Amino acid sequence: MPLRRITISDPADPRLDDIRNLNSSDRRPDLPGGKGLVIAEGPLVVGRLLESAYPVRQLVGFPHRLDSFLAEHPLSGDLPIYEVSREVLAEAAGFDMHRGLLATADRIPLPSVSTIIDHARTVVVLEGVGDHENIGSIFRNSAGLGIDGVLFGAGCADPLYRRSVRVSMGHVLRVPWARLEGKSTTWQRSLDVLRDRGFRLISLTPDEAAVPLSQAMVDDNHQPWSKVALLVGAEGPGLSEHAMRATDIRARIPMAPNTDSLNVATAAAVACWERVRTRF
Amino acid sequence: MPLRRITISDPADPRLDDIRNLNSSDRRPDLPGGKGLVIAEGPLVVGRLLESAYPVRQLVGFPHRLDSFLAEHPLSGDLPIYEVSREVLAEAAGFDMHRGLLATADRIPLPSVSTIIDHARTVVVLEGVGDHENIGSIFRNSAGLGIDGVLFGAGCADPLYRRSVRVSMGHVLRVPWARLEGKSTTWQRSLDVLRDRGFRLISLTPDEAAVPLSQAMVDDNHQPWSKVALLVGAEGPGLSEHAMRATDIRARIPMAPNTDSLNVATAAAVACWERVRTRF
Repeated sequence: MPLRRITISDPADPRLDDIRNLNSSDRRPDLPGGKGLVIAEGPLVVGRLLESAYPVRQLVGFPHRLDSFLAEHPLSGDLPIYEVSREVLAEAAGFDMHRGLLATADRIPLPSVSTIIDHARTVVVLEGVGDHENIGSIFRNSAGLGIDGVLFGAGCADPLYRRSVRVSMGHVLRVPWARLEGKSTTWQRSLDVLRDRGFRLISLTPDEAAVPLSQAMVDDNHQPWSKVALLVGAEGPGLSEHAMRATDIRARIPMAPNTDSLNVATAAAVACWERVRTRF
Repeated sequence: MPLRRITISDPADPRLDDIRNLNSSDRRPDLPGGKGLVIAEGPLVVGRLLESAYPVRQLVGFPHRLDSFLAEHPLSGDLPIYEVSREVLAEAAGFDMHRGLLATADRIPLPSVSTIIDHARTVVVLEGVGDHENIGSIFRNSAGLGIDGVLFGAGCADPLYRRSVRVSMGHVLRVPWARLEGKSTTWQRSLDVLRDRGFRLISLTPDEAAVPLSQAMVDDNHQPWSKVALLVGAEGPGLSEHAMRATDIRARIPMAPNTDSLNVATAAAVACWERVRTRF
């Protein structure tokens, strides 16, 4: 049993400030007013946070949740471990957290785009994806399908927001990601670094004038491109014209008549699958 | 302006009973205590309900939402159209519905399995999918990717639950679906009807012993099977052993090491794409 396992019975205890009023203070953790922390919920995601490069600050949980978690993840060192009742946690966090296990960590500097693409064969590039759950799903799917990294263009939500971390099942803490510099009408220029490294830049769009996805993924000899950057935009507006113009080709997932485009995370999963399927 | 456009200002008016306390009464609309109605929310889904075979009972909305909806969907006949304020709707429904447009309809008898598979080339078969949003997503994706029908084995949630209808973007009202008869350990026998009609039965599983998806979709001559039934189970437990034994082959979406299986709706979308991609 680690030495630093401490029971806290006062919800106002400042040692619980990391997880206080999560619903409001965590809404934009990267901005002033937010805490800027990474928050992991539930044993699976907390375990992945502990394995990640993010410096963990504390573990908080119900006694029986801590027991079972620590039995499978023996911790050493002086990480504070706070035992709380369901009532104390609910009062501090601002809502009932039935998972009963949390960890917080500090953010770390993002890697450079170059670091990520140096050894990458496939990256996903996002523009205007403002929905935290979609971003979380994109990381979960990218991890599962073996995508090498995710690059953020302008207008995306924070991937380290609590809900993104949860929906990603912690993979946002594992799949490398970085930000392409520039504002909404200029970030596209930073795609040049991908082209310079030999990436084929493919925009995903529902536009019927675009080429079918399978065709866009291969060269004239029907061979898969050696490196692919797959751009996806928000559901609804999709990629900006600026972004699509900066790519080599526009690809579509052919859809049945009178239907809607796929959800952005689903469309990205299908496109990633089409990219990686030939590996197997 | 239709004749039957009526303003209701009393939330207790019995003409609003169809949409009363939606959060509780609609939880299992197919069971006693539920209303058994189909409820469509928002202009897109309400429009699709009006185009469907379901007999619409009423339209309810904020005055400006009704104006813009009726301008695009001229209605005739004697369908009651109720104008309500945001406050009246919130009081009747039990929560604030910012979409401000609803329609209700009666259920209709389900088609037989035979009717659906007679002209189908690809169907999705679900077992134990208890999450309404996943079911909604599966219908949305199936519609988009041109799947011919969805068949329900045991243990699935009601696809006509309000949230499923919404997440499906109304496609649950358009893509044909039916129930395979039998309980959790017997419904699999009803898969025989698919085999008798020449369907290749493919189980989707994360099991590493299963064959890769792309391989399962084609015969020994690398030709796509002429008819495919694709079975998917709940996230977590997956398909039952009973169900998988009743199929011809077990297929997996190969995953990167140390990742999780895809969400069930995403996995189904990838598998459906793999099935239909050769059509384009």
